Amino acid sequence: MVDVDVVVVGAGLAGLSAARAVEAAGRTVTVLEARDRVAGRTLGGALSNGVHVELGGQWVGPTQDAVLALIDDLGLETFPTYDEGAALTFFDGQRSRYRDESFGLPQKTAEEVGRLWTKIEEIAATVPPESPWETTHGTDFDRQTLDGWLCANTDDGLALRFFRVLVPAVFSAESPELSLLHFLFYVRSGTSLETLVATTGGAQERRVVGGTHLISERLAEDLGARVRLESVVRTITHDSDGVRVDFEDGSVTGQRVIVAIPQTLAGRVRYVPPLPSRRDALTQQFPAGSVIKFHVGYETPFWREEGLNGFVLSLDDDFNVVLDNSPHDGSCGVLVGFLEGTHARDAAEMTSDQRRDLVLRALVKYFGPQAAHPFDIQEQDWMSEEFTRGCYGGRLGAGVWTEYGKAVAAPVGRIHWAGAETSDIWNGYMDGAIRSGTRAANEVLHELS
Amino acid sequence: MVDVDVVVVGAGLAGLSAARAVEAAGRTVTVLEARDRVAGRTLGGALSNGVHVELGGQWVGPTQDAVLALIDDLGLETFPTYDEGAALTFFDGQRSRYRDESFGLPQKTAEEVGRLWTKIEEIAATVPPESPWETTHGTDFDRQTLDGWLCANTDDGLALRFFRVLVPAVFSAESPELSLLHFLFYVRSGTSLETLVATTGGAQERRVVGGTHLISERLAEDLGARVRLESVVRTITHDSDGVRVDFEDGSVTGQRVIVAIPQTLAGRVRYVPPLPSRRDALTQQFPAGSVIKFHVGYETPFWREEGLNGFVLSLDDDFNVVLDNSPHDGSCGVLVGFLEGTHARDAAEMTSDQRRDLVLRALVKYFGPQAAHPFDIQEQDWMSEEFTRGCYGGRLGAGVWTEYGKAVAAPVGRIHWAGAETSDIWNGYMDGAIRSGTRAANEVLHELS
Repeated sequence: MVDVDVVVVGAGLAGLSAARAVEAAGRTVTVLEARDRVAGRTLGGALSNGVHVELGGQWVGPTQDAVLALIDDLGLETFPTYDEGAALTFFDGQRSRYRDESFGLPQKTAEEVGRLWTKIEEIAATVPPESPWETTHGTDFDRQTLDGWLCANTDDGLALRFFRVLVPAVFSAESPELSLLHFLFYVRSGTSLETLVATTGGAQERRVVGGTHLISERLAEDLGARVRLESVVRTITHDSDGVRVDFEDGSVTGQRVIVAIPQTLAGRVRYVPPLPSRRDALTQQFPAGSVIKFHVGYETPFWREEGLNGFVLSLDDDFNVVLDNSPHDGSCGVLVGFLEGTHARDAAEMTSDQRRDLVLRALVKYFGPQAAHPFDIQEQDWMSEEFTRGCYGGRLGAGVWTEYGKAVAAPVGRIHWAGAETSDIWNGYMDGAIRSGTRAANEVLHELS
Repeated sequence: MVDVDVVVVGAGLAGLSAARAVEAAGRTVTVLEARDRVAGRTLGGALSNGVHVELGGQWVGPTQDAVLALIDDLGLETFPTYDEGAALTFFDGQRSRYRDESFGLPQKTAEEVGRLWTKIEEIAATVPPESPWETTHGTDFDRQTLDGWLCANTDDGLALRFFRVLVPAVFSAESPELSLLHFLFYVRSGTSLETLVATTGGAQERRVVGGTHLISERLAEDLGARVRLESVVRTITHDSDGVRVDFEDGSVTGQRVIVAIPQTLAGRVRYVPPLPSRRDALTQQFPAGSVIKFHVGYETPFWREEGLNGFVLSLDDDFNVVLDNSPHDGSCGVLVGFLEGTHARDAAEMTSDQRRDLVLRALVKYFGPQAAHPFDIQEQDWMSEEFTRGCYGGRLGAGVWTEYGKAVAAPVGRIHWAGAETSDIWNGYMDGAIRSGTRAANEVLHELS
């Protein structure tokens, strides 16, 4: 039986950042991780030619100051996402090539999208990210789904379809699955809709040399034996004296515990005594998004020769968001793309070959016959991972923020909550995960002092 | 290590009905129950004078053929809910006494409520209860919340407020928390909105002498040592050879397992191998309702003397649904009432004294100064029960039925699902729980034969 000051559950960016801060303050810490690896929703992989690819979260960008500072601190480096040339949009059987802010849509629709976009940015600016439930008109925003708001605010069917593709691209969830308030909060939390969606100047601007999982791995190296892998936590017992965390092969006691796993997984731990109702109810309705990520490797980034930056949005296809994810040295061409929301859920029930066909058919349509002959395809289904059960992150449907939002990050006695979904800034992103870990560590250190 | 044909998880009406059917077919069965009692969301209690009250599900009515037949089979009896006299509705500071179908609302609003009501019954009739996701226009119905539909379909603010009270009275959830499709399915599943809401002729028509928990207790008596209490299930291991169910103090092996607990709790069990993504995702977003049930005991049912049947609906108050729940012999007066949805969640964070004051203030307003002097008040907060975590039942928000509905009752290999929320008929009710248990037992028996 190990005894420490602070027990951390989960060795993703949130848990490791928390542990790092606790350890730096001279307190003892143990991190319990269910998997046989650290890094949570970031994961390094490789194509058959040995070129590194990232199977999970991969981009960082401006205003993500926490992750950028940590990358720097750990001696890691970033490089810009390839973003030269024209992007493609497909709709109603048409292929539209563009370099401006039109998303390749017909002028009337582009203007309508612009109008809705501005409206979203304006309302989102009224949401206080640290307490979305206190938003002026928040109850009204939370009573409706994002889809309901879109339907009520535009008569342009193509603009509606555009948002119904853009939303899954950001949330890996469909627009009816989000409350309007959750959407607005998320936009505000990530600076602006423009910032969330953009490559250059936005959340997809830069990549980490060697992969984002290196951030967690370096943090874990520094923590050494304080991180215990393959330790599936079953029970957290807590009272006025301290906490005891039981996992499948042992127990750790401590003064405080930081639970740094997604809410939907945190709800699967048994708490003795049970959690307050509002907190428990929150874990009953904070589902993860649905996404399968594909990397498709080619001998060369051939689309660049045609002046394309590799970015595709299709309103007509299932595999409908694609970006250039080639290695920094351009030694081969890599396209990354996603099946999201409904498309991911349906594809998860296909065979691997069926999914491969689906992906290649789409890429041939987007980039021509050369796309039919990759040297490798790799897929990563985050829904099937027992200790994630969905990416990119958790989402809140209608009514949840105003009814349960207070419970998202509020400590319960000696139990503190971290994880990307508990962050007010860059909620759902690596940056938010790191901020949440630091915040939870500060809560704990304040109590211990 | 016990070995049986069928392991059942949960000794509520669903699990016990399943076990009974399995045993009747000559197969061996073990039922594992986390609590130290059977009967799940039904529970017997008593006021300080010894008069029996039901702290959980209590009413049965016409078309609930499964529960009525079982009651009869087990030698139990029913009696009619007291329903003589006028009902009361409160709105905008007014007290309205009525005996007709107006709900005591002003004529214009009553007509508008009637119009919406008819529309609801008409659309609900188009939902196939065994597969709501196949409803014509089902995707449209599921894209919107019930609240969104109500707002779009009436300009009468009072009619809207009426439905915003009626909905929590049926679902213990607020109208934005339900998808329109879920609401329509539920109405169809319970015959009609009229049937769900009515006392005489509806779901509140009759009560069970001695209490509904006796149904489970008699079933459990017959099963004897096959029911094992205080056995919190941790892990279900399943493969082509059979299943193993590990609980805190042991294991049971079997050919098949029937998981007969609410989805939100079923998601807290560990499955080896993990469940398919769609099923797991369903458990991430099938939250239970929020309700605190109060019984208030008086020397006599004094309201009857004023020609009141005890039924109250208030659009102005938190404690806003009240019924006469006096014992059959009229030996004392008992009012039963509910805090539901938002009101329940807020009240759960008050002290017991604050809740008592809130309840009595409302009852004095409804029934006069005599209501201030009960001989006892009992409250039952189902949200705080570790092995329920909310009543009356689970609900589905926007988008869930069409995206995940197929997974509600579909077996996963050797794992079968029961529970009130898996029933097509009387979903969420005792009747549905029993039907689901029988259905799951039939699935299993078919496979074993």
